[in-house]
Amino acid sequence: MSPMNSGLPTRVKMVEVGPRDGLQNEKQPISVDTRIGLVNRLSQAGLPVIEAGSFVSPKWVPQMAASEEVLAGIERRAGVTYSALTPNLKGYERAVEARADEVAVFGAASEAFTQKNINCSIAESLERFAPLLERAAADGIPVRGYVSCVLGCPYEGEIAPEKVAEVSAALLDMGCYEISLGDTIGVGTPERAKRMIEKVASRVPMEKLAVHFHDTYGQALANLYAALQMGVAVVDSAVAGLGGCPYARGASGNVASEDVLYLLQGLGIETGVDLDKLVAAGNFISAELGRESNSRVARAISPA
Amino acid sequence: MSPMNSGLPTRVKMVEVGPRDGLQNEKQPISVDTRIGLVNRLSQAGLPVIEAGSFVSPKWVPQMAASEEVLAGIERRAGVTYSALTPNLKGYERAVEARADEVAVFGAASEAFTQKNINCSIAESLERFAPLLERAAADGIPVRGYVSCVLGCPYEGEIAPEKVAEVSAALLDMGCYEISLGDTIGVGTPERAKRMIEKVASRVPMEKLAVHFHDTYGQALANLYAALQMGVAVVDSAVAGLGGCPYARGASGNVASEDVLYLLQGLGIETGVDLDKLVAAGNFISAELGRESNSRVARAISPA
Repeated sequence: MSPMNSGLPTRVKMVEVGPRDGLQNEKQPISVDTRIGLVNRLSQAGLPVIEAGSFVSPKWVPQMAASEEVLAGIERRAGVTYSALTPNLKGYERAVEARADEVAVFGAASEAFTQKNINCSIAESLERFAPLLERAAADGIPVRGYVSCVLGCPYEGEIAPEKVAEVSAALLDMGCYEISLGDTIGVGTPERAKRMIEKVASRVPMEKLAVHFHDTYGQALANLYAALQMGVAVVDSAVAGLGGCPYARGASGNVASEDVLYLLQGLGIETGVDLDKLVAAGNFISAELGRESNSRVARAISPA
Repeated sequence: MSPMNSGLPTRVKMVEVGPRDGLQNEKQPISVDTRIGLVNRLSQAGLPVIEAGSFVSPKWVPQMAASEEVLAGIERRAGVTYSALTPNLKGYERAVEARADEVAVFGAASEAFTQKNINCSIAESLERFAPLLERAAADGIPVRGYVSCVLGCPYEGEIAPEKVAEVSAALLDMGCYEISLGDTIGVGTPERAKRMIEKVASRVPMEKLAVHFHDTYGQALANLYAALQMGVAVVDSAVAGLGGCPYARGASGNVASEDVLYLLQGLGIETGVDLDKLVAAGNFISAELGRESNSRVARAISPA
């Protein structure tokens, strides 16, 4: 197909968050071998960035225990960035010791969510990352900043785009090289997404922005298409749509990487990712979890 | 929310096709009472057009047998258009006898599909509708024209937008007041949808165009958003995402009306449809069918 997608990026970086943001929400324990098998299949599919684990306390997120073993066990593919979520300096040190190529910190655009989640203000939550970001800068380790609740909060409802821009700018100022804007409860719609991105882009360069949509209300790909129209060229997703919230009935998880890739291919946007191998990776983890994939593309093209 | 959706229509007409395009694909028999109960719940939700049945031969589509009884049994709500699919003059006569307010004829933009489906060329298939359209014009009954395979054909692959425009223009010339463009296998993506609509709109006025997306690959709402950006203001959908093809594993059906309405509401577009009542209608038919709704919105907001 000839390039006719004027205004859309010609290339998109897909950031795979399934092994972390996806699996951390699973109720059943998942073996280290399975986690390694998933990461390896994802790298073989051509994904350039894979969030492979999390160095939070296993007391809080037992699903992410042994992330060291996952990072030690994978076959590292040249050119692939293996990242990990790190809540603080101690987690950062564990991640670097485990040879994470990149780490990520997690903020929110909602005061109510931040209070409920970690019992402090947004400003305080960001301050806590300062030692981590200083050390990472000294070590030359790139840090990604997540901002959650960018289109809505389970406690506050609507979130002002200005607030998202403020938190994003703060993370950028602290040293994050990329800001991922997360509609973590999936309530957003395209024009609101555009308005939010427009506001954030007035303070953070568009090329440093990523979008991170959950598909709870089925709006993720419409929102993604709107974000691409704005010029966003980094997209988070989880293979097989992993990451359904165990606390809300039927609440689906991250937008499925397979469905994102199908969209991007249809738009003539390059990613370097192989759809068949990606579907195979999703079918592998779905089989391990004993359930059907949340990816419509996977369900449509997989043999019965 | 202030109107900031420049370029998008301010109002959209939702055409509910669940009782026909949805239920006709069900393997299990569905009672007339259930079909009546569904149509009544949909009209109470505020849907302005409901395709309530089909007057094809029960030999071919047994699920749509007794459409007369459905149309006879419903509570007719003022202002609601109750339509029916009619393959020929005989079906038309049965539909009008049953007091359908409107009828619909079904064409395709694919020669291969038309040959496989009804064993004739597209041109021949349209000619067969001529007596029906003449009679409907004399009777003052509006006729809607469906064009299927507008973004792809299971036998031919890609379909030229020019072909879709040609078939659409032919149906308009024959007397159809509205042309519904159906991506009946759900393979389309937004830029291709835009290119197709642009071509059709060069021959059929935009206000006479409807879009009809299936969500097989999860692309329906992204495609819909693209169509709205083009100025399309009539949208087909099926409550609970009814209409999964029984012949393809996991192939989902029509885009869910609940998910469409959530999108339209988020875009600040008026429809006159009540989301809670629509979700209740979808939950009613899903319970009758003994399965989970295909609407993500319904799954997200319904009590466990």
